Amino acid sequence: MDDELPGAIGTSASLALRLGQAVFSVASLLFMCVGVEFYAYTSFCFLVTIKGLTIPWSLTLAIVDVFSVFVKRPSRQVQIVFIIVIGDWVLSFLSLAAACSTASVADFMITEGGAFFCGRKLCSRFQLSAAMAFLSWCLSIASALFNLWLLPSLY
Amino acid sequence: MDDELPGAIGTSASLALRLGQAVFSVASLLFMCVGVEFYAYTSFCFLVTIKGLTIPWSLTLAIVDVFSVFVKRPSRQVQIVFIIVIGDWVLSFLSLAAACSTASVADFMITEGGAFFCGRKLCSRFQLSAAMAFLSWCLSIASALFNLWLLPSLY
Repeated sequence: MDDELPGAIGTSASLALRLGQAVFSVASLLFMCVGVEFYAYTSFCFLVTIKGLTIPWSLTLAIVDVFSVFVKRPSRQVQIVFIIVIGDWVLSFLSLAAACSTASVADFMITEGGAFFCGRKLCSRFQLSAAMAFLSWCLSIASALFNLWLLPSLY
Repeated sequence: MDDELPGAIGTSASLALRLGQAVFSVASLLFMCVGVEFYAYTSFCFLVTIKGLTIPWSLTLAIVDVFSVFVKRPSRQVQIVFIIVIGDWVLSFLSLAAACSTASVADFMITEGGAFFCGRKLCSRFQLSAAMAFLSWCLSIASALFNLWLLPSLY
């Protein structure tokens, strides 16, 4: 395959996207979890669950990309790419949903609750977590689009 | 064009999807707006804004479909379908974001605020509005997928 689509699975751009997703997801998870009782709020639990799904998915595909870039390019099978595309799309929708839920609840806590639901420091941690989740979603949808674009050329 | 893709722009399935989107969006807007001071909450304003964009978009494309089904099929130009695909995707992401924000804030109001933020009747109206927004999003993403699927066959 000479006409390589940058960003599709098995390229160095894809590796960069996957690593970015994993880094932002981990950052989002750390801002949300470390030393905070996040599990009192449904939206925050949802974010943690989705990030717990996204991080292994991105890291697995990053390993596939590392193998493909540095060792040996495996032949792309259409079934495998199809599964990757489906997984990417489902996870990116869930990521967007989780990021929006977190952002809106954090905003609601700040505007309505004052210091009742969360102190200044804690509230800004929730906001940062939502921002990291949005950045992770942007990279995730980019990966999903590139892989979807690759799919018809394999048939 | 004999091999008609059901659900793509200009078919009766597309007309049904567009009308469904408009109906659910209007229902969501009515549950949210009528007699309620929704503008105190950012998420609810976001939902109303997005629904205010979605309804004219769906109705316009429904009119195009009606014309195409009942009067005369116009030739599909690739630029126009491309614009429709872009608009569908952007609006469906925004719809999902608005639905998630509304749902999570409504849930947060109920679990944390009790009757402080909204009474039993008002809270269930916010929940119904979020549910209608989700249904509208499901139909919207279906339209977006069908039109995206149509796009490569036009090049």
